[in-house]
Amino acid sequence: MMAAERVSVKEKVLSANDQLAAENRRLLDGRGIFAVNLISSPGSGKTTLLERTVDLLKPLLRVVVIAGDVQTRNDAERLLGHGIPVEAIETGGGCHLDARQVARTLTALDLTQADLLFIENVGNLVCPSSFDLGESAKVVLMSVTEGEDKPLKYPAAFRRATAVVLTKTDLVPYLQFAPEQAIENARSVNPELAVFWTSSYTGEGLEDWIAWLSDQVRLGRGSGKGGGA
Amino acid sequence: MMAAERVSVKEKVLSANDQLAAENRRLLDGRGIFAVNLISSPGSGKTTLLERTVDLLKPLLRVVVIAGDVQTRNDAERLLGHGIPVEAIETGGGCHLDARQVARTLTALDLTQADLLFIENVGNLVCPSSFDLGESAKVVLMSVTEGEDKPLKYPAAFRRATAVVLTKTDLVPYLQFAPEQAIENARSVNPELAVFWTSSYTGEGLEDWIAWLSDQVRLGRGSGKGGGA
Repeated sequence: MMAAERVSVKEKVLSANDQLAAENRRLLDGRGIFAVNLISSPGSGKTTLLERTVDLLKPLLRVVVIAGDVQTRNDAERLLGHGIPVEAIETGGGCHLDARQVARTLTALDLTQADLLFIENVGNLVCPSSFDLGESAKVVLMSVTEGEDKPLKYPAAFRRATAVVLTKTDLVPYLQFAPEQAIENARSVNPELAVFWTSSYTGEGLEDWIAWLSDQVRLGRGSGKGGGA
Repeated sequence: MMAAERVSVKEKVLSANDQLAAENRRLLDGRGIFAVNLISSPGSGKTTLLERTVDLLKPLLRVVVIAGDVQTRNDAERLLGHGIPVEAIETGGGCHLDARQVARTLTALDLTQADLLFIENVGNLVCPSSFDLGESAKVVLMSVTEGEDKPLKYPAAFRRATAVVLTKTDLVPYLQFAPEQAIENARSVNPELAVFWTSSYTGEGLEDWIAWLSDQVRLGRGSGKGGGA
């Protein structure tokens, strides 16, 4: 198979995905729902951050979650324990979520009862960044244990993100990790990035993260993009 | 584009890759070189483990490295500082190494002066597991900060691996991490896995890892697969 054929197949897949993503976006915007596509390496703490975030946001906003995984429904089950609607997508080997899977899963959620949708992508810092799901914003998580250089080595995810959440900051005293360098690397790839410095164990930084999410929901509605069902 | 078309394209890509991987394997086996394909999430400590491993192995074996990354040559430059031959592959967005890239890169290395080849794959726990590079063994790294459930959520890499190296074990006192559960999960996916428990900072467990690698080189030669150039 020639390189040109591979490129054209990839373009066809991405363009079909873009059309479905645009439909998802129209649906979500029409209902005034802010949708976050959470992207990170495996084990950087997406589900634990979501558990804390859901607990803190529940008095303020109606939160729903789509939890993607290559295999198992473990993350979805952990989140269901927090009393919110959760739907799982098992990709069965697939390395990212796509807009079609999200479209199908949205039909299982009552979108008249939602302000904020989290889509927890498959743990993978490469492939998910190429696939628009119809989200309002991509947010990249990066654990302090992963090192400062990840934004330089995996730039696409950081370039397309609106915010980066540094996680597991309680471990910094036990690591050789330079926070300023990590943030400088992220901003060198994307100067517009909002940066959050968080620990789901100690609660450090979660207040700012929650305030930012609440602002995004309010701003989305104020812009006329959303405005209710 | 229909699903059937996608599947057939994927099969063509994998089968072309398999042919090139078989050629790489013949070349490496013919020279008695044991080749390790190192697979892990971003930031789980592949390069740091390699730096320590190279220092410890240098008096015993001739080591060469191919270092893959989506972007930057940082890892290759770090390893060059340890006085061994290193070649970099930048995939430019690609989410895994393939056999063609490795074949091309092998021509840049003097294989008459090598006993052990490390191929450091792109940081990604999903895609690299599908692509045979012609290696003698796949080894999966898993940092203790990633949680116990990774073998269950990303089973393909663990199923195809010969060994798993748990890394960053010096951080266990600061984590909620159950080592026995992680090892049980890995062995539930692949009962044959050799398991190493290591810290590149304290040196814990590196002796066993080095002994295993030395054994693999010796056994490979003893089997008649290799035997020298």
